[in-house]
Amino acid sequence: MVERWCKGLQMKGRTLVALIGITIVVSSLLTYAATDSEKGFLRGMLGQIGPTKEQGTNSNPQNAEQAASLKKVYEIYGLIQDNYLEDVDQQKLIDGAINGMINALGDPYTVYMDPKSAEQFNQSISSSFQGIGAEVTMEGGKVTIVSPFKGSPAEKAGLRPKDQIISVNGETLEGLDLYQAVLKIRGPKGSEAELNVLRPGISDPLTVTVVRDDIPLETVYAETIQKDGHTFGKIEVAQFSTDTAAHFKEQLEKMEQQQVDGLIIDLRGDPGGLLPAVVEMSQMLIAKDKPILQLEDPQGNREVVKSTIDGKKSYPITVLVDKGSASASEIMAAALKENGYKLVGQHTFGKGTVQNTVELGDKSQVKMTIAKWLTPTGEWIHKKGIEPSISIEQPKYFLAAPIDVKKGSLQFDQNSESVKNLQVILDGLGFPPGRTDGYFDQKTETAVKAFQKLNNLSMTGKVDQKTAQLLQDQLIKKIQEPANDLQLQAAIQVLLEQVKK
Amino acid sequence: MVERWCKGLQMKGRTLVALIGITIVVSSLLTYAATDSEKGFLRGMLGQIGPTKEQGTNSNPQNAEQAASLKKVYEIYGLIQDNYLEDVDQQKLIDGAINGMINALGDPYTVYMDPKSAEQFNQSISSSFQGIGAEVTMEGGKVTIVSPFKGSPAEKAGLRPKDQIISVNGETLEGLDLYQAVLKIRGPKGSEAELNVLRPGISDPLTVTVVRDDIPLETVYAETIQKDGHTFGKIEVAQFSTDTAAHFKEQLEKMEQQQVDGLIIDLRGDPGGLLPAVVEMSQMLIAKDKPILQLEDPQGNREVVKSTIDGKKSYPITVLVDKGSASASEIMAAALKENGYKLVGQHTFGKGTVQNTVELGDKSQVKMTIAKWLTPTGEWIHKKGIEPSISIEQPKYFLAAPIDVKKGSLQFDQNSESVKNLQVILDGLGFPPGRTDGYFDQKTETAVKAFQKLNNLSMTGKVDQKTAQLLQDQLIKKIQEPANDLQLQAAIQVLLEQVKK
Repeated sequence: MVERWCKGLQMKGRTLVALIGITIVVSSLLTYAATDSEKGFLRGMLGQIGPTKEQGTNSNPQNAEQAASLKKVYEIYGLIQDNYLEDVDQQKLIDGAINGMINALGDPYTVYMDPKSAEQFNQSISSSFQGIGAEVTMEGGKVTIVSPFKGSPAEKAGLRPKDQIISVNGETLEGLDLYQAVLKIRGPKGSEAELNVLRPGISDPLTVTVVRDDIPLETVYAETIQKDGHTFGKIEVAQFSTDTAAHFKEQLEKMEQQQVDGLIIDLRGDPGGLLPAVVEMSQMLIAKDKPILQLEDPQGNREVVKSTIDGKKSYPITVLVDKGSASASEIMAAALKENGYKLVGQHTFGKGTVQNTVELGDKSQVKMTIAKWLTPTGEWIHKKGIEPSISIEQPKYFLAAPIDVKKGSLQFDQNSESVKNLQVILDGLGFPPGRTDGYFDQKTETAVKAFQKLNNLSMTGKVDQKTAQLLQDQLIKKIQEPANDLQLQAAIQVLLEQVKK
Repeated sequence: MVERWCKGLQMKGRTLVALIGITIVVSSLLTYAATDSEKGFLRGMLGQIGPTKEQGTNSNPQNAEQAASLKKVYEIYGLIQDNYLEDVDQQKLIDGAINGMINALGDPYTVYMDPKSAEQFNQSISSSFQGIGAEVTMEGGKVTIVSPFKGSPAEKAGLRPKDQIISVNGETLEGLDLYQAVLKIRGPKGSEAELNVLRPGISDPLTVTVVRDDIPLETVYAETIQKDGHTFGKIEVAQFSTDTAAHFKEQLEKMEQQQVDGLIIDLRGDPGGLLPAVVEMSQMLIAKDKPILQLEDPQGNREVVKSTIDGKKSYPITVLVDKGSASASEIMAAALKENGYKLVGQHTFGKGTVQNTVELGDKSQVKMTIAKWLTPTGEWIHKKGIEPSISIEQPKYFLAAPIDVKKGSLQFDQNSESVKNLQVILDGLGFPPGRTDGYFDQKTETAVKAFQKLNNLSMTGKVDQKTAQLLQDQLIKKIQEPANDLQLQAAIQVLLEQVKK
């Protein structure tokens, strides 16, 4: 439960599992963060530009000059301490000064993290978290278990798919959104979560006590797809974190043992992660001595990173990307594209820089942009992104929001953003509303009535709580149906064409 | 021209002259800025909390501690200099650190100004600027002179009301908004502005050369109003700047010589200004020994500022306020209210702090909140504002924006913010559009047709450039009509009732 959101739940275009704590903290990250896997990796470059705690400011020859230029900061700091109307928290002023300096760089990827944020960040790039170990979704307003993870505390405690969690340690989850509910269910290793659970077929709520533990975070999801007598593998990468390369290797080997006819790598919505991970993974796919990327340091020196495996893969590969594919995802996508594979989906995000994280004495960290990465042919895709070989959008209803009837039913002659969203959903479900600009006209009313008739609701033409819920449930079902994932279908088509040749 | 915008032009609710460079830079200002008038004024308090350039950081006993706490700022400054991907402008980093510290205070009134901003700020609180000296407006897309100031370079060069300025020193003003045009016409004292001018009745454009000079900025406007056999004075204060108190005194004396039956002080849209100015002005209105305000320093010590004139005014006074009345305006409004006078209009802005400006060695400045001001009875109105005695809103059309037909005519079945704005204007001009939510329905079309018929336009029911322009011209006329200024009318009513008693 509650350590994962279910596919399609957020209805944000992509039907992927959103990993809590990851999608939130790590956006478009590409870092050399201190992991064992980086030892010996790109050591030359790290030696040049990767500052460490040991390399303190005392070794800096410009000290005196820097001290002089900071004199004004120091002066104003004093003025504030002495004269400002209210008492001022020193720490706040200092963090403010640091954030101000960093903001002045105009680089969204260079950030200062106070000790607490730094810890969260470190967790986010590691491959585990502490909780009960289950995938949850929101169904009919209830937090519902999709499935407990294998061997997790949730499984051991006997939780089952479709169980609805009502409360945690006496605190009700009613009225919370999925994210808020997840925060209540998670907790430190060893602590107990007493859950009140409704189980289908059992009338009284059960009480289930789960002892929380370290839960490994899956960032790689694999499945096979049958189409026209062919078997294709699909490996989805949610993020490039510490164990991602190892898991990817495992799944890739499984696919190859099964002798799949082609492979789809799904990088949609993948914000990136660790540079060593994406390099290692790309090296598993691209033929030996072919370039994967180039790194460029502040002085303009470049280093080409090449692949290591023998020979080209015997099967075709297609890569799914969208505008949420950023950073490490773009390295992989560009490497595969420039080595002859096809990208399917949308233009990617466009982040072409590498960050390094430096820990300061008080456990705060600075994550700083220290290098560019370029594609194998030397292109810098920063702020530009990568154009897919085959450009294809998802249906419009993938982006619809939940219908909001808090302020009353939606009905004829209204004019609002809520109506606009309703119209997109009606359209997606095959009830054309005439217009999608937010004005509830006769045709929209007819569409609502048609939906109500087909679903045995009274044909009021008004969207009340009940109609809204049903529209939404059907929308989620529709989004989760692979046949409606137009990008995936296009990727399969590309593989089919290549297999037939 | 172009040093002032004409009444009603911006259609921002209030039909007041907006003073360029003032409304932009000075928002809700209340400062002890270094003016001669402050010498001897509240000297006790200034001595305690007003830092000056001389009072440097060396006199600060906490130096060593402060230096230590800023060590991290210094460390990260070094990290950036040594490792960041791009070359970094030192000045930018330092300004960033200072702004960051100041933002951390969470006080919108404490600000750092680099040398350039500091100079602009100093100009904004002085009572003059450099330019040609004329009031301009935008009519039919042309920058048009309302009137040259008396004795100004514009007057001396022969410019007249209704002259349209086409270009300045060869640069066309076409396509610019009034503010952009004003910036072209203004310039340093002694410089020449060669204007290309269209004059009604003369077919070819004239060339007029104006030598720019110091132009005194009017912040006080006075007029008399006749109603039911009574004469009332109205003094409008646009801002409290260096010469405002002297001008106010002059106008007040004139009114008293004319023996007005009552006085309206109009503080609507007045963002504040200098504390000494508002104190001096309030002292002209409130009876001797009555409190005007209280000042409270960071330690909580209070000082009551009292009035000096003999006896209460023999005539009634009413004060016009709105949500744009802030800071110094609120001091005056609260002082008059708590001394028995009536406020008419809207709830005021709510700014109850006092700032002091400190100049640093490089001519940059820090404007810092150093005290609270309280009303005579000791109430702190910060973030609360002052409730008027008689609450009255302006008609809705006072807030309408210019009609935007750049993307094409507005017409039946459209649904947009532009239509919404059009509906407000139609309503204001007496052509009820049925709805004002932005959906262009049958009734809106009928309203447009009615307007077109009455104005001899072809009755298309569509709002094209021509219809839009005419709607706008009529709206401006309507806003400028004192009878439609409901707040002013209410203030006159209050005076009438008091005079009749």
